[in-house]
Order: sequence, then structure tokens, then C-alpha cells
Amino acid sequence: MDKYVIGVDFGTDSVRALLVNTRTGAEAASAVAYYKRWAQGLYCDASRNQFRQHPLDYIEGLTESVTEALAQVPAEVRAQIVGIGIDTTGSTPCAVDRAGTPLALLPEFSDNPNAMFVLWKDHTAVKEAAEINDQAWNHSPIDYTKYMGGIYSSEWFWAKILHVYRQDPQVREAAYSWVEHCDWMPALLSGIKSAEQIKRSRCAAGHKAMWHEEWNGLPSDEFFAAIDPLLAGITRNMYRHTYPSDQLAGTLCGEWAQKLGLNPGIAIAVGAFDAHMGAVGGGVTDRVLVKIMGTSTCDIMVAPYDVMGGKLIRGICGQVDGSVIPGMVGLEAGQSAFGDVFAWFRQVLMWPLQELAETGLVKPEFVEQIKDQILPQLTRAAEAISIDDTQVVALDWLNGRRTPDADQTLKGVLAGLSLGTDAPRVFRALVEATAFGSKAVIDRFVEEGVEIDEVIALGGIPKKNPFVMQVTADVFNMPIKVAESDQACALGAAMFAAVAAQVYPDVKTAQAHMGTEFSETYAPRPEQAAKYREVYQKYLHIGGLLEDILRKL
Amino acid sequence: MDKYVIGVDFGTDSVRALLVNTRTGAEAASAVAYYKRWAQGLYCDASRNQFRQHPLDYIEGLTESVTEALAQVPAEVRAQIVGIGIDTTGSTPCAVDRAGTPLALLPEFSDNPNAMFVLWKDHTAVKEAAEINDQAWNHSPIDYTKYMGGIYSSEWFWAKILHVYRQDPQVREAAYSWVEHCDWMPALLSGIKSAEQIKRSRCAAGHKAMWHEEWNGLPSDEFFAAIDPLLAGITRNMYRHTYPSDQLAGTLCGEWAQKLGLNPGIAIAVGAFDAHMGAVGGGVTDRVLVKIMGTSTCDIMVAPYDVMGGKLIRGICGQVDGSVIPGMVGLEAGQSAFGDVFAWFRQVLMWPLQELAETGLVKPEFVEQIKDQILPQLTRAAEAISIDDTQVVALDWLNGRRTPDADQTLKGVLAGLSLGTDAPRVFRALVEATAFGSKAVIDRFVEEGVEIDEVIALGGIPKKNPFVMQVTADVFNMPIKVAESDQACALGAAMFAAVAAQVYPDVKTAQAHMGTEFSETYAPRPEQAAKYREVYQKYLHIGGLLEDILRKL
Repeated sequence: MDKYVIGVDFGTDSVRALLVNTRTGAEAASAVAYYKRWAQGLYCDASRNQFRQHPLDYIEGLTESVTEALAQVPAEVRAQIVGIGIDTTGSTPCAVDRAGTPLALLPEFSDNPNAMFVLWKDHTAVKEAAEINDQAWNHSPIDYTKYMGGIYSSEWFWAKILHVYRQDPQVREAAYSWVEHCDWMPALLSGIKSAEQIKRSRCAAGHKAMWHEEWNGLPSDEFFAAIDPLLAGITRNMYRHTYPSDQLAGTLCGEWAQKLGLNPGIAIAVGAFDAHMGAVGGGVTDRVLVKIMGTSTCDIMVAPYDVMGGKLIRGICGQVDGSVIPGMVGLEAGQSAFGDVFAWFRQVLMWPLQELAETGLVKPEFVEQIKDQILPQLTRAAEAISIDDTQVVALDWLNGRRTPDADQTLKGVLAGLSLGTDAPRVFRALVEATAFGSKAVIDRFVEEGVEIDEVIALGGIPKKNPFVMQVTADVFNMPIKVAESDQACALGAAMFAAVAAQVYPDVKTAQAHMGTEFSETYAPRPEQAAKYREVYQKYLHIGGLLEDILRKL
Repeated sequence: MDKYVIGVDFGTDSVRALLVNTRTGAEAASAVAYYKRWAQGLYCDASRNQFRQHPLDYIEGLTESVTEALAQVPAEVRAQIVGIGIDTTGSTPCAVDRAGTPLALLPEFSDNPNAMFVLWKDHTAVKEAAEINDQAWNHSPIDYTKYMGGIYSSEWFWAKILHVYRQDPQVREAAYSWVEHCDWMPALLSGIKSAEQIKRSRCAAGHKAMWHEEWNGLPSDEFFAAIDPLLAGITRNMYRHTYPSDQLAGTLCGEWAQKLGLNPGIAIAVGAFDAHMGAVGGGVTDRVLVKIMGTSTCDIMVAPYDVMGGKLIRGICGQVDGSVIPGMVGLEAGQSAFGDVFAWFRQVLMWPLQELAETGLVKPEFVEQIKDQILPQLTRAAEAISIDDTQVVALDWLNGRRTPDADQTLKGVLAGLSLGTDAPRVFRALVEATAFGSKAVIDRFVEEGVEIDEVIALGGIPKKNPFVMQVTADVFNMPIKVAESDQACALGAAMFAAVAAQVYPDVKTAQAHMGTEFSETYAPRPEQAAKYREVYQKYLHIGGLLEDILRKL
């Protein structure tokens, strides 16, 4: 009889449950649930880059998506489900009490954004990240950032904790420990009622929390106390051990088994970040870069130990043993904005109509209708412009730069504007800039000795915008294969569930049986590739000239 | 009995006739006529920056505007008209035959754009300007650009002539001499039928044609022949003498007296450029910068001989004895785009709606209605943004840079963009950038020893956009007075008519009697001024970093 697993993928706005046949990899059912509080904009303040998510959004979304997916299959299929794998966004940490409960689930903190999950894209902790870097680089005997590309980011675990501790003494007092979203979900399903028993994700700990075997776990307590006395003792109730996602986080507890309509005791895999499980779902292996392209990008590779040796890779987001595939070093890089850059320009162009909608002169439906058409229209118009006409060169750092050399204080640029520059020319420059930003990531890997033979693309952009993909392939001068599955992250989570449930002995075998096909390949066009080589040099040149001043704007 | 004069102001799209009482300066009548062929887009090709105007547009526009203005007053007023002064755009040259007739008025050239006036903003001669500069800087014993700020522009007389000669052998063969638009109009009214008798404007010759007393008139024939043998002999039928506009170009001939309904024999003043006469109309005097602010800006000053000494001012558009006020050195500078920068952004924002209009989904009237509202709305929204929120810093070189250090190959920049940058923030940055560009002009004057106590603003922008004016005053940290008259150029032309007709002995006396009031003063706000001092440094810094690469985009 076929066995089934559930992959659960917690994204920024919604959670998807995917029911997968472990023998064929075929999708048996799937359902999406949107976060209700998040959809209303609660607990967020975009002007200050504060983005928080309530744990109830996760609980309700999980219940809704899984039960809805299960309702699509007969009872005999439901009975054959043997495991659940979970991925989430990250670093998305939350303070928990001694029982491992997120503080916002306690009545006294139910409305306090500091007691909620601090979403990956929350940038409130820029100052704190700078202080952590200063301590690591200039004062600490060990540079704890060295396996994270050498720069600690404001998007990560400790910076966010310190920021919340400075803002909110009550949360500070009540916090027993902190968990990542991908740590908490498996613990919740497993019925774990103690913070100490939560199995911590290797992926989250290694890429975001400076965990490494070289220093026997987390950085020392002295390190944190030197940054701010508020952090003294912070490691006491944290963790020493971490686990790759082929391991069990626990087994499904009775309460959740009943809630979801599943058999109690089935395997719950250790959680990991969406891009990492997505890379597995998309077919990541040695010498292949998997690029998850959406609002931002996450670029994942795996390298065997013999390639890595003792090598430290400068300016990426981390190198962690087993963070992607157990037995290899997982490498993470990425761009802080990709689709968000195009969405930004659409938003700028929508301004006149949105103003009019507020005065009641145009109907909101009309505004929405036009909004939906702008990017397709811009794409068509930009596609018609000859590459020789490129005069505007943009920098894609509108949300800072993640790789190479993370710096969230950087900003975007449009250079080369003339009175004849129209909206499609600006858009084309932005598309080219995001491709150049991707190329800079590839160049960094290659410079550091990690060869790339092939690029696989996943996520929203590859299926939606062939123009963007073709420009990217031309800029890379390398073919890009697009994964057929729309749900590579959930599929990857399902693969980990299959390994944790011992359906397969390891991730590679699971990939071989359950892996996705490729729907298309974008081949680079030699003439365009040659021309983009020159424009890319201008992009690098402008970036180099402006880096310092952009930090000060 | 009161005496009256007519000021005629030929702008880019239209000509205005203003009837002025010489005793009071009061406007007795005024009328505008639009150029018909120009309005249809004839003889122009914006994609190649080719802009030509047919002399019939000028003749018909002059007749229409003057007769319409005269129809507004009783016969006894018409009988008291004693002179006409004329200003035009420039450098706007045209090839003429031996009789001084623009070639396009001859049947065989009536449709040939090369036989028409080459409008100031025609940029077809970029290459020719570079060759003239090379000859002047690197080969000629005399640097003939030295009284023009050291750089010859593609917008000017000789570059345009050389470009036409290379394009069009027939025009080259037929051309006996060349005139500026401001030379030709007074000659036409005076009934002059010989190119030799046309009185050449000191203003046009000195600021655009490298005429200077130091070398006894125009540059040598050898200079021109060395640039291109096509120019050999070019100075033979040009001119040696030039005249300020307090002099007579001639007196009204019978034919035109009849056509316009005026007394024959009344004074016709020597012509000059609009900005120069506008500065006089707006009250220019020692230590006052008059800024004519429209699509671009023209910045005019006058300096006494003792201030100037033998001084050469780097990087402005020329220093010419008597070009503005006889007896003082006229100084010209400016920005290649001002209002055009805002219009550009409006055009970018209009793209979605204009696309929709083409598909028939929205009505063209609706699109026009929104277009009219965008800048006022953007202004309101930008005004509400705190100066501390300034993160985007723009360079205003979207049409190249006129002053300081003319360079039409430069381009615009928006630096410091983030995902939170909305349309009003971009607009605010563009407003600040145009103000910074203006400040850079002021700084150059001051660095070169020409002190500025006061700024007077004329033109379309000062009356239309108080926000732009306030930002400019804050950036200058200097008050800006706005001339009340909407027609300072025509008023200045009328003042010259009054002096040429000997109603007043000199321009200063005419200014004292006929001068405009000031409608308002924008005082700098100290707190804003202090903050803008810092942002201005960033503008200069970014400009300095990017100058080289922008030339190559």
C-alpha cells in the first residue's frame, strides 16, 4: 500500500498543506489558509519596518489548511499518512515561557507585538545588528560571524531578541527562552510542554543564531553580556544541540491528532526554513544553485565536505553542516528584494489612481483592475526595447543587500535618467538590476571556489514572468531550469517527513523518488549575454562608487 | 500726454505683444499668438532632439499678437506708440540670403527644416560642439570659449551652423550669412533688405557666437576652417560690430506700419534674448541674481566693470559687456531642466493610464483630467513630508547640465530608494534636486567673486508652485522675491523700446519708472536651511562620484 506524508509550508502571508504520495511524489491534495490577523495589518508598522505575526495565525492556519487538504482524499488515504514535515520563514523568533509557549498566547501578552513572532523581514533591529558585528569583529576573541559570511544581519535571531529586550522590559522578564517559528510548530504538534525539550533546527541555529560545533554550540554568555548587560545569561535556557530535518522532532500528540483527523504517533520531522526545504524539493545537489525567486530570493547550494575543507565563504548568509541535506554543508545566500522591486515600481505608478480612489472619483475595483495589468503591460513594453537602448542602470538594493556582504543600510538607485526615460525603460532597468544582483551572488560563490554548473529556479517569479527569467539567464550566461512544482517548499518538507518516518533512508533517496520535473529551461542568448557583460560592469562600478554614501542616506 | 511702447516676446511656443505706458509701466493691452506649424509638430523630430521653427510662424504670430493687442485700446493710445522692443529665444539661428531673408521663405526651401530657425533646444549638434571645443582648447592660439565659461554648447550658433552645413549642401550653397532670431525680427520690421545692414545683437553674439572685443569681433576664419573646411570663409559675410538693445536696429518701415496699424518711423530697438530682457523687466541690478524659472532656468546677473576686472568666470554660459544692461557686464548661467524634471516624473506616472487610453478602456478626457491634477497633488503630498525624512537624493541632470560647467551628456539619478519610497518622496527629491542645481549655480558665481545679495524669480514656476519656491529659498538660505508681472520678458523689451525711442536716457531710468512690483517674498526658514546644507553636500558628493560614469551611459 502507498504511504503518504504531509508537507506544511508556512509562508509570509499564508500556510499551505500538501499531501504527497511517497512512492511517486504525486500531489494527492493541497490547501492554503491565509493568516487572518496579518491580513488585517495587525501588529505591523511598515513605516518602521516592524512586522510581527501572532501565533494564533499559525495555529488557525495550520488547522485550516491541513483539515481542508485531508477532506479532499478518502479515509483510506488519510489512514496511510505516516509523517509531517514543516518549513517556515526565518529568522522568525518568538519569546516563550518555561513551557515553550509563545508569550502572545498568554492572556497578559495577547496584544503585545513584542510577545509575537518577529517576522524575517522585520528590520527594527538594524542598530542591534551593528552592535553584534562590532563585538564579534573588534572585541570578541572568536569572530562568531565567520560561518555566516562574516556579517550578522538585522533580520536575524539575536539582533531581534536584543531589540525586543530594549523595548519591552515586561517581555524580557517573562521570556524564559526564544524559539524560531520552525522550532515551535513541530514541538506544538508533538505536544511538547517544556522549552528544554524543543528540538532546535540545525538550519535556523546555524544560519541565524551563530550556532557552530567549533565553539560547542552558541556563542558564549560573555559575548552577549558584553554587547548589552540585558543579554547576560541569555544562553542559559537556550540550547546546545541542534538537529537536521531528517530527525524526529517528536510524534503527533493525541490532541493534535484529533484536531487534524490523523493517527497519533506519526513522525514529526525537525523543522527548517522554507528556502532550505524548497531547495531539496526543487532538486538541489552538488554544483547546482537553487534560486527561490519571489518577493526576495533565497539562493541555496550544498557542498561536500571535501570541497569545503576548512573554507570560510565571505559575505554569504551562512554555511552550516546539514542545514539543507544531512551529510553536506548547506550554503545560503540571497537578495533582499527581487519581485518586491517590481512591486515597488508598480506602487509608485499606482499613486495617481490611488489618490483619485480616495477622493471617490474612481472606483476601487477599477484601481485594482489597473493594478493587475501594470506589470504584464510593463513587461511587454520593456521586452520590446532593444538591449542597445539600455541607458538607465539601476541598483537593486531597495531593501538593502543580503548577498554578497549583507548590508541592510544600502539603498536602491536609478542612474542615467533623461527626459526621454519612460516607465518601461525604468522597469527594464529594474529587471536588469535584479538579474545583476543575482549574478553578483553567483560570482561570489565561484570566487570562493564553489563551482556552479546549473541553476534551478523555484518560486512565484519563474512561472509568472518569462521576460525576467530570460534576462536573468542572459545575465548569468547560464541555463536556468524551472521546477514544475509550484510547491517545492511543501514538497521538500514532505520529503523530510518521509525520511523522518523511515520511508526512505536518506534525503537523496527521497529526492530520487519524490522529486519534481522541470517545466522549462531558459537558455542564455549569446548576443545578449555579451552585451549584458558590459552593462553588468557598469552596475558593479556604480555600486562600488555609491556604497558608502548610500549607507548614509 | 503719455507715451506707449510695445514689448514683443517670442517664446518657444508662442509670441506675446505687451502694450505699456512708459510713464507708469502699466500694461495697457496684451495678446498672445501660438505658432501654427510648430503646434502641429512640423519640422521637428523629438527622438533626435531636432527642433526647427518656420519663419512664417514668427511673421504670422507677430502680426496677430500685435494687431490683437492694439485692437484693445482706443486710437489715441495707438497714436502715442513710440517704439517696439523685441526679445526671442536663443541661440536660434537661421541661414539667410544676401537680402537677409531666411532661406525657408524662398520657394525652393519652404519645406526644408535646415533652412529654418534652429530652435535653442535643438541638440542635433552635440558632435560639432565637441569639435569646436577641441579646436578652441587644444589647437587654437586663442581659447575663444574663455568668455563663455570655457565650454561651447551644442545649443549654440556655430555648432548648429556646422551641423546644418554637413547635413545639407543645398542650404550651405544658398546661405549668404546667418542671423539669430532676435537679429532678424527688428530688421524685418525696419524693412532692411540687406544682410550687411542687419544690426547684430550684442547679447546673442557675445553669449553664443564667441564675439568679443579682445579679438576684434568673431573668431578668425582660420579657427573655423581648421574645425572643418566647410566653414572656410564663414566669417566673411557675418559681422564685426554688435549692439546693445538700447540702440536702434532701425525704424518701423511703411509696409509693416500699415500691416500693424502703427505710425511709420517709430523706434525699433536692437533685439536680445528673452531671459536677458526678462531680467531687466524683473529688476536686475548689481548683486541681484534674476532667475527665469520655467521648463529650464536662465540665471542672469550684471556686474560693474570694477567687479569684473579682467576676470574670467569658469563654467557659466558667458560674460558679455552690455548684453543685459549697457555699461555693465552681463552674466548668463542656467539649468537645462527645471519644470521639465517635474513634467518628466508626471509623464512616468501617467504611463498606466495612457496605456489604458490606447486600449479604449478609459476616455482621453479622463486621462487629461488626471494629468492636470498630478503635480498639484504630488506637491501637497510632498509638502507634508518632513525634511528629516529625506532619504532619496536626486541629481537634476535629466537634460544634461548647463551650469556649472556645461555638459549635455550628463544624466539624472535617483539615489537612496527603498521599498517605502513613494511617489511624493520621489517628487520631493526631484524638487530638492532642482533647488540644489540652482544652488550650485549661485555657488559658482560666489566662488568666482560675483557676490549675490538677493534673488528675483520670474517665469512660470514662481507663480504656480509655492512649495518649489519655498524649498529653493531654504536651499539658497536667501530670500527670493517673485516679480508680480507675468510678462517680465515683454516688459523688459518694452523698457528697451522706451530707451531706444529716447523716452528715457538709459535702462536704469526706464527700470525705475516702468519696473514691476514684487508679489511675494519667500524667506528661508533657518531650521530647514540648516538641514538642506547637509543634504546639499550629499547631492554634490553623489554628483562628483557619478559624473564620469553618467557620461558613458
